[in-house]
Formats: sequence, C-alpha cells, structure tokens
Amino acid sequence: MLSTQPYKGARDFYPEDKRLQKYIFTKMRDVVERFGYEEYDAPIIEPLELYLAKSGEEIVNEQTYVFEDRGGRTVTIRPEMTPTVSRMVAARRQELSYPLRLYSIPNLWRYERPQRGRLREHWQLNVDLFGMSGLAAEHEIIQVADAVMHNFGAKRTDYIIKINSRKFVNYMLSEYLQLNDVQTSTLIKIIDRMAKTPPAVFSAEVDAVFSPSARENKLPEQLLHLLKTNIIDDLPLPLRSHPSVERLESLFTLLHQSGMTNVEFDTSLMRGFDYYTDIVFEVFDTDPENNRAMYGGGRYDGLISLFGVEPLPTVGFGMGDVTLQNFLESHNLLPKLKPETDAYIVLIGDVYVRAQAAINDFRNMGLKIAIDSTDRNVPSKIKAASKKGIHYAIFIGENELDSEQFVLRDLIEGTEERHSSSRIVSIIKDRRKK
Amino acid sequence: MLSTQPYKGARDFYPEDKRLQKYIFTKMRDVVERFGYEEYDAPIIEPLELYLAKSGEEIVNEQTYVFEDRGGRTVTIRPEMTPTVSRMVAARRQELSYPLRLYSIPNLWRYERPQRGRLREHWQLNVDLFGMSGLAAEHEIIQVADAVMHNFGAKRTDYIIKINSRKFVNYMLSEYLQLNDVQTSTLIKIIDRMAKTPPAVFSAEVDAVFSPSARENKLPEQLLHLLKTNIIDDLPLPLRSHPSVERLESLFTLLHQSGMTNVEFDTSLMRGFDYYTDIVFEVFDTDPENNRAMYGGGRYDGLISLFGVEPLPTVGFGMGDVTLQNFLESHNLLPKLKPETDAYIVLIGDVYVRAQAAINDFRNMGLKIAIDSTDRNVPSKIKAASKKGIHYAIFIGENELDSEQFVLRDLIEGTEERHSSSRIVSIIKDRRKK
Repeated sequence: MLSTQPYKGARDFYPEDKRLQKYIFTKMRDVVERFGYEEYDAPIIEPLELYLAKSGEEIVNEQTYVFEDRGGRTVTIRPEMTPTVSRMVAARRQELSYPLRLYSIPNLWRYERPQRGRLREHWQLNVDLFGMSGLAAEHEIIQVADAVMHNFGAKRTDYIIKINSRKFVNYMLSEYLQLNDVQTSTLIKIIDRMAKTPPAVFSAEVDAVFSPSARENKLPEQLLHLLKTNIIDDLPLPLRSHPSVERLESLFTLLHQSGMTNVEFDTSLMRGFDYYTDIVFEVFDTDPENNRAMYGGGRYDGLISLFGVEPLPTVGFGMGDVTLQNFLESHNLLPKLKPETDAYIVLIGDVYVRAQAAINDFRNMGLKIAIDSTDRNVPSKIKAASKKGIHYAIFIGENELDSEQFVLRDLIEGTEERHSSSRIVSIIKDRRKK
Repeated sequence: MLSTQPYKGARDFYPEDKRLQKYIFTKMRDVVERFGYEEYDAPIIEPLELYLAKSGEEIVNEQTYVFEDRGGRTVTIRPEMTPTVSRMVAARRQELSYPLRLYSIPNLWRYERPQRGRLREHWQLNVDLFGMSGLAAEHEIIQVADAVMHNFGAKRTDYIIKINSRKFVNYMLSEYLQLNDVQTSTLIKIIDRMAKTPPAVFSAEVDAVFSPSARENKLPEQLLHLLKTNIIDDLPLPLRSHPSVERLESLFTLLHQSGMTNVEFDTSLMRGFDYYTDIVFEVFDTDPENNRAMYGGGRYDGLISLFGVEPLPTVGFGMGDVTLQNFLESHNLLPKLKPETDAYIVLIGDVYVRAQAAINDFRNMGLKIAIDSTDRNVPSKIKAASKKGIHYAIFIGENELDSEQFVLRDLIEGTEERHSSSRIVSIIKDRRKK
C-alpha cells in the first residue's frame, strides 16, 4: 500500500495552505515591483559546476541534491538562486540594460535534517540589483528588505537589520590581527556559528586559531572584544579609518535619513556564501526566543565573471518563506483567509440541464461558483458549503428558474434573500471588497 | 569557464518570458476559479513507488528523472501531478468535503529528447473533480477545458475536443473482437500511436496482433473500420447498445446543450495513462499542420484506493504550457505585454538623498518605479528606460524638488508635462487601465 505522506522535509499545500502561500508571495511581489524589479525564473535543475565555484563547501558537498541524469551529466536541484541569476545575466551581459532589477520566488532544495525554520524544500524571494557600484544600491536593497516586512504589517521594533562589511572583516583579520589566509577563513567559519556556540566553547575555538605569540599579545581577547562592537566610533583607530568602515558609515547615514531606525553595525556578521565581496546584512527577529538570522544578502560584485564576461557590481538578498512564515505567525501577522469561491450553487430537484444558462450567467458576470449537483438533500449540501468555508449559497430549482429570482443564503449570517442574478452578483462583489 | 546555457530541454524565463507565463497562468486561474476550483501544490520530489502502479510503463521506465537521495530512498522529480493529487486526497479522505474541486499549475519533468511542443521541463494546469460519479462531472471538466481556450480568445473552430470511453474500447476489443488481455493491451498501445504511424505500417501492426483465424474472419479490417467511426449511430448493433456508448451519447447531449459544437466521438482515442477507467478526451488544434493532441483527461475512479482508502469517482485533465503556448502563437492569440514598471525616475544632479521623500510618495501612492541614480547623462538614462520598454520617465532635480512639480515624459508619445506628484500618479494609473 502506498504512503500518503509527502517527501520528508517538504510540504503538501492543501487549498488553505496554498492560499496563505499566495498571500505571502503577492505581498512580496507588491513591494518589489514598486521598486521596479521584474520577475524572472529558470529551471530547477542546474549543472553541479554552477555551485562548485562560489557557493561555499558545506552547501555543495553536504546539502545539495546531486544526481547523474540519463545522459551522464551531474546535475543539481538548485539549492539557491544567486548562481542561476548570475548565469542568466552573464548570458545576455551586453544586451541587458542597467541598472537591472530582477526578482524571483524560486523553489529551492537542500538536503538537511528538517528543523524549525529549515526544511528541505522552501521558496525564497530573491531580489538582485545589477550594474550599480555606488551605495545607492545597498541603500535600495536594504530598503526593499525592510519594505517587505512593513508590507506584512511588521513594525520596525519587531526586527533588526544587522550590517557588516566583508572588506572590513578581511582587513580586521588579516591586517589588523595579522592572521594568514588559512587562519582567516577558519575564523570566519567559527564566527559564522557564534550565535549557536556556547560562549566558553566559542572563546576556546577562537583562541586555538591564533599562534602562541599572538595569544601572548592578547590578540584573541582583542578579537572577542571587537566582535561585540556595534558602534563604529568605538572601533580602535586603524580600523575606524579604514575605507570599508567609511563606506559602512555612509550607508548608515543614508538608511537613517530614510527613517530606518532598526539598523545596526555588527562586526560578527559573516554570512555563509563565499561570493560576497563587501557590505553584507541579515535581518533578525527582535524576539529573543527566535535569535537566528531570518534572511539577508549583500554585495557580490565578481560572480558573473565566472562565466567569462565582464564583471558587474551586484547587490541582492534572499528571503525564505519558512522563516518568514514562522516570524509572521509568532507576531500574529498572518490574516485569516477565505476561500476564493464566492458561492455554492445548490440545485433543487432535477434541474441540472435547465440551470446551465443561469449558472453560466453567474460565471460570466465574474462570480466564482461551485455547483453541487449530487443527489444529497439540501441540508447536506448546505453543510458541505459551510465546511468549505464558502460565504454564500445560491438555490436554484424550478421556481427560481421560472421567476428568474434566486434565493441567496448568507451562510455566515444565516440570512436569506431573493433576488435577480445581477443583484446577487453585485451583493457578492460588494462583500468581496470588505 | 562556466556555461551560461540553461539545462537541456528546459527554459530560462527572462522578464519578458516570465510576463507571458504569468499572463497564461492568470488566464487559467481565472477560468478554473470561476468553476469553483481551489489551488493546491506539493513537493516536486515524490517517491518512485507513486508512479510504478498506474502511470504506464513508458513514462516511469524511460522518461522519468529518478535518483537515490542521500538517505537511500529512490525518488522522482514528478513527471505528472495526478498521482500526487491522489495521494493528497487519500491522506484526508475522511475530512475533505465532496464534491472537491482542486487545481494546480505544477512544474513537471520528463526525460526525453526535446522537440516542438515537448520539452523536458514544463508546467501543466491540472484540474480535478473528486466525488461525483454522474456525467455532470465529465460535463463540467470538459466545459472547463473549453472555457480555458475561450478565455485565451480561441474560437471553437480553432480546436476540437475528441471523446472516447475506455469501457467502450475494452468492450470493443475483448468482447466484440474476442481478443485476450495481452492482445488488447498491445493493441491499445498501437492505436495510441496511430496518428504518428504511416497507415500501411499501422494496418500491418494491427494485423499482426490477431490470430490467423481472426484474420480469416476479417476482424482486423473490422477494427480498422471501427477506428474511423466518429458517429455513434454508425456503430454496429452490439456496440451501439453497450452501456458505455449510452453514457457517451448522454455526455454529447449535455455538451451540445451547453453550446459545444466542437466535440466529436473518436473510437481511436486511447490516452496513454493506465489509470483512466471510463470517459477520456483530448483537445486537438484544427490546424492540420499541428495534428498532435494538445491536452486531455478523463475519468480515473480507482486511483486513490492504491493508498488503502475508499475509492472516489474522479474526473480531471491536464494542460501543458508548452503545447498551449505553441497553439496560441500559431493562432496569433498572444498579446504584447508591457513591463510592470510604470515609470523610470531620472535624477538630475546630486539629488539622491533629497529625492527620497518624493520617490517614497510615488511608491506609497501605488506606482511601480525604478530609479536611475547612476552618473550617466540624461539622454543615456532616457535611452535605458526606452530599452526596457517603460512607458514614462519622471525627472527629479533641484527645481522639481523646490517647486514640488515634476516633469513627466511619455516615452512612447515623446510628450512632456509638468505636474504635482499626485496628478502624475493619476495620469499613469489611468493609462494602466487602457
């Protein structure tokens, strides 16, 4: 006997679930289109090579769905969209007009143990701005990330946007703290897990990366102190005056001018992917119960040059549906949604054929209607409509067809009225707007 | 160097392609929701077992993407949606309320040589009606299939809906022509390919299935004659009075009563999948250049019992986006679509920070706007907007911000006017409606 369960870590969307997903996607599209972004899409299967170069080891080696197709090609069910959009822009590098604003809400797959906020299958709003090297790009992308939250009804006290710079991190580790490349990349991975690591373990891990002489000079302690710094002016002088920090400072000024009070410098923010080159940001729930990064992005200027074309300055972010939905639920920001179907047609007696013209009229006037032509009794039919959450029932029998006056029952209020079909349509359309 | 090509047999959707896809999906949703269908969705990965039982050998063994996941499960990238929706309904067999109307537009994958109308990746509108054993179910599903075409502007002379009955075919082959099970199932496969097979080859293939004595009795010739019959009254008597034929006849009466002149009986229509149990139908382009079935469906009453639950009467159809798009293109039914972005903001001088409030006003009043904050000259910015196909440019410089009057340029007409932001918004919104 076959199982009725969906594949582990993935979700079935029954109509009530799909309705919620469509609500979420519509709210996302609404915002990004107001900022001039246009939707694109691409196949869910991509060659493995696309991810090997720049996605970071963990995601490719341990977390992707990789298999060989019947033609012997090693392919991947895409775990993220950035390599794909880079491929598409590279393919038309010369013809496209910049600044180029693109968004997508792709279905993505990662092979990992399902847990709260992380499933094997998810959808992710991807927003990318190509062709702008100036800070106006970061400013806009972070504004979009903020406006999406606002469009769901979140207040700026509900979440905080933490910002850092990869260039600053590199300078801090390799120049200021004099670490070599291996030490730097090991530390970036350790810091990336900081929030999930107990403080004592974290200190020990950091300590172990430094050389004995660096430890004597208290460099690990200096780093631990720096990682807690979230005010630019508190940075020691050689760091404070580094160009990457000046860039961060200008970005904060722009964001503050746009009324964004919920942005914060965070020297410990790393963001996993290897392709980021400068500013990175992540959005966190301010609720201490949910201390994981919900989503984020940053600047990744070099990526399209992997395809042998001129590089393009690029800033983008990705926002997953699962973490977002958890956030919206815990902040009571998800609405109760009604079924799309406006009315349930209850046929009385053997009028199926005769009722067709009236039914077509209702549809042609724009109503979404479901017919119950079963031979159950009327109370059972009404019960079925109520169970489906449909607001209205319209009764059609011989009398109604003769008089061209139909009984409209409001299944929520329990009231009944008799009207012409056009009057019924306008009552229902008025109700829809509420 | 990485390739910029999408995976073979699959498509990249740049904004102009995605816009067309969204137009097609919106037109589909519009129709099916008017018939009371509600959208569902499910993971693109399913266990292989789901397809082994009933999809037909060819599709599972030769045409599916099958691989082993890291947990050792043999999984499939879904080639069709019917097994999935059956799984979902079976999982909630008791709780769901019937008649149950479900639709989805899933992404499906088949491993085959890409050709016109058949790609490895496609999307398919799936419409299913559960819980109705009466002909009203077939009547409604065929009406939906017809209404979708109508909603794209197709006339009933552009396509024909051919209808047959699996019960009739089984009776014709096993009882009337006295063939055994093996002969019957071999013949069904031969007949399924009839349109693609040269007539002489086809006759020889049919002939070879019959026994010498049957050939002596001219049974192959009888079959060839029957396969050309498309008028119920032309059937010889024992076939004419079979209950399956009476059911077909009642269905044609219902469809004719609904004004459907483009329906035809076709004894040679088989429809590939093994799960159909009674009425089947397929929609064909009437253009002889495109003689393949575009899409179809039928009744498959038994399928959910594979999951160990009570069977449910079910009728459904699936309509692929690739064949549909080919049809719409060849009949000139695809509109020219404009970009979603309403206006391109051209900043004059160094006003990026000062212009933010005005830009936010435009967005908050519902305009979809893209900012060009690059340091190119104004003609280059206008050229970029035109290249993107955006209808309007709005110029914002120091003067405009001082006077709160902005220059609106119609990039199609080449005209310019100076207005307040709210006046600009209403001009653009009026234009959108046209």
